[in-house]
Amino acid sequence: MNINTIGIIGAGNLGTRIGLQAAISGYQVNVYDIHEKSLNRSQSSMKKLVDHLTRSKQIVEEEGIQALGRIFFSQNLKETLQNVDLISESVTEDPDIKTKVWKEIGENAPMHTIFTTNTSYLLPSQFAQVSGRPEKFCAFHFHDVFYSRVVDIMPHAGTSTEIIGILEDLGRKLNQVPILIKKENSGYIFNTLLIAWIDAAGRLLTGEIAEVEAIDKSWMVNFGMSAGPFGILDNVGLDTAWHITTARRNPASRAFAALLKTYVDEGKLGTKSGEGFYTYPNPRYKHEDFLK
Amino acid sequence: MNINTIGIIGAGNLGTRIGLQAAISGYQVNVYDIHEKSLNRSQSSMKKLVDHLTRSKQIVEEEGIQALGRIFFSQNLKETLQNVDLISESVTEDPDIKTKVWKEIGENAPMHTIFTTNTSYLLPSQFAQVSGRPEKFCAFHFHDVFYSRVVDIMPHAGTSTEIIGILEDLGRKLNQVPILIKKENSGYIFNTLLIAWIDAAGRLLTGEIAEVEAIDKSWMVNFGMSAGPFGILDNVGLDTAWHITTARRNPASRAFAALLKTYVDEGKLGTKSGEGFYTYPNPRYKHEDFLK
Ligand SMILES: NC(=O)c1ccc[n+]([C@@H]2O[C@H](COP(=O)([O-])OP(=O)(O)OC[C@H]3O[C@@H](n4cnc5c(N)ncnc54)[C@H](O)[C@@H]3O)[C@@H](O)[C@H]2O)c1
Ligand SMILES: NC(=O)c1ccc[n+]([C@@H]2O[C@H](COP(=O)([O-])OP(=O)(O)OC[C@H]3O[C@@H](n4cnc5c(N)ncnc54)[C@H](O)[C@@H]3O)[C@@H](O)[C@H]2O)c1
Repeated sequence: MNINTIGIIGAGNLGTRIGLQAAISGYQVNVYDIHEKSLNRSQSSMKKLVDHLTRSKQIVEEEGIQALGRIFFSQNLKETLQNVDLISESVTEDPDIKTKVWKEIGENAPMHTIFTTNTSYLLPSQFAQVSGRPEKFCAFHFHDVFYSRVVDIMPHAGTSTEIIGILEDLGRKLNQVPILIKKENSGYIFNTLLIAWIDAAGRLLTGEIAEVEAIDKSWMVNFGMSAGPFGILDNVGLDTAWHITTARRNPASRAFAALLKTYVDEGKLGTKSGEGFYTYPNPRYKHEDFLK
Repeated sequence: MNINTIGIIGAGNLGTRIGLQAAISGYQVNVYDIHEKSLNRSQSSMKKLVDHLTRSKQIVEEEGIQALGRIFFSQNLKETLQNVDLISESVTEDPDIKTKVWKEIGENAPMHTIFTTNTSYLLPSQFAQVSGRPEKFCAFHFHDVFYSRVVDIMPHAGTSTEIIGILEDLGRKLNQVPILIKKENSGYIFNTLLIAWIDAAGRLLTGEIAEVEAIDKSWMVNFGMSAGPFGILDNVGLDTAWHITTARRNPASRAFAALLKTYVDEGKLGTKSGEGFYTYPNPRYKHEDFLK
């Protein structure tokens, strides 16, 4: 099956990045959002991203101009769905919104179109039936497209196997490392590892075994990683981290969730707010003498 | 307090490395072991390490020669303990052996000598009393000295605080990043993080969520680390990993311990045996096209 046109549903943070990469990879891209403001913001974000990619020599100027020329923005779903061979849905992470959106898509997309969702924590089986095409439905989950170049392919039990091969190919064409998750798992692979690791770090901190910097150093020196669990948490956002941690039931996670809450309540959300476990733009863990 | 002479008790894998680094850092080093064979092996290992450090330009030839000249090997504990300002104990990880050794040390070391143990999983409080000098007793735990340059400083409740400052200084002089663990925790910081992370990876594998390579790729691409959990496990040794995992009680860890056991029973111990989750010396995860 040949993929020429990709439909991006939801022009927020991720939809914008996926859409731009698809255009850079040579695909015709139709971007849809229910809000005009989102479409406008998406368009200007794409221009900024192209500038950034050009300056960092990941693309040449001409490629950027051509890519932007292949992207079509619309607030009309039917118009967007014309001729699309594959849909990548990145609307708000809310089961009700996604259910409504997938019902509409199923009613209006061409019969051959492959359906993919970029959901972070929900499961493809939650939307496969309502889309009307469970066999064509699969999770195709990007991390952030340009920096962490991973795309998870996670079928539900009813996804037809040929879709998996098509998505593996497409993932590589989109400059990602495709990773197959054999059966449904909320959070795919990476979040399962990440949450366990962060949970352990939280346990050391709330148990008063060690301080933030000692914990980060230990991991950074041993594995040559450029950040430890608390540096990473600041990047994830302490609000998001609190949201995930608070859903866990063991006492250690609850203690850590309570600690995260005190940060969130003070407006300390991590990198994006200028303060979290470290202060920004020059967090201690990036200082030259941190590992001394 | 001035440290000039360091006593290394136990001339195995770690004692050898700590002793050599201490000599490279300019200390007089007395190395003791109960077995002559261990002392001989230690001496030849040190020469090989010096060659390696010289070839990789971490030291110059003359430094290596001088360092080796500062090391004194002995099978006589009393002789070893003369004039030592600090002891680093790296005998076999067995509470009975360590208890016996610390009793002997306490009876024979100079009164001012600082006592440190390099134990991986035991706690300093287990040996502090028998040493007769609980206030001078502290865990001072190296990872592998030359590659992972971390030294954990973990006092027990009775360690006097001035010891901590002395060990932080010494750690830096030994070219390590000193990391303070505020209260006793088996496995310090790093193993707590490592075990949680590996446990999560084991859960994904035994739960048939994903394959070894997919799990490793996911972490490697996201965090730019040169190995994922299964590559790291091969390095740790699957026998050691089995030993640690089998002590855990949750069902997922038990399933993973059972899987590790099948590897161990087949002689697949990881890097050291030539096969584990990957095959050596050229494991797939180090191939150029692994992250494609
Ligand atoms: N932010 C991340 O790091 C990240 C990473 C991977 C996956 N994801 C997933 O991608 C999806 C989008 O996340 P995001 O961070 O881009 O969110 P976002 O809030 O930036 O964007 C969501 C977009 O969906 C639009 N939208 C809402 N309702 C809609 C509807 N009915 N029809 C069409 N558009 C609608 C909004 O206007 C908004 O532009 C979520 O499922 C999220 O879990 C996010
Ligand atoms: N191997 C590692 O990666 C590592 C890392 C950090 C810490 N450690 C810790 O360091 C210690 C030693 O580990 P290793 O890997 O070097 O072990 P090893 O088996 O290589 O060495 C142990 C040495 O202790 C000697 N020994 C045994 N009984 C003795 C006694 N009564 N008196 C004097 N010497 C005696 C043995 O002859 C042997 O040379 C352990 O506590 C271990 O947990 C090991």
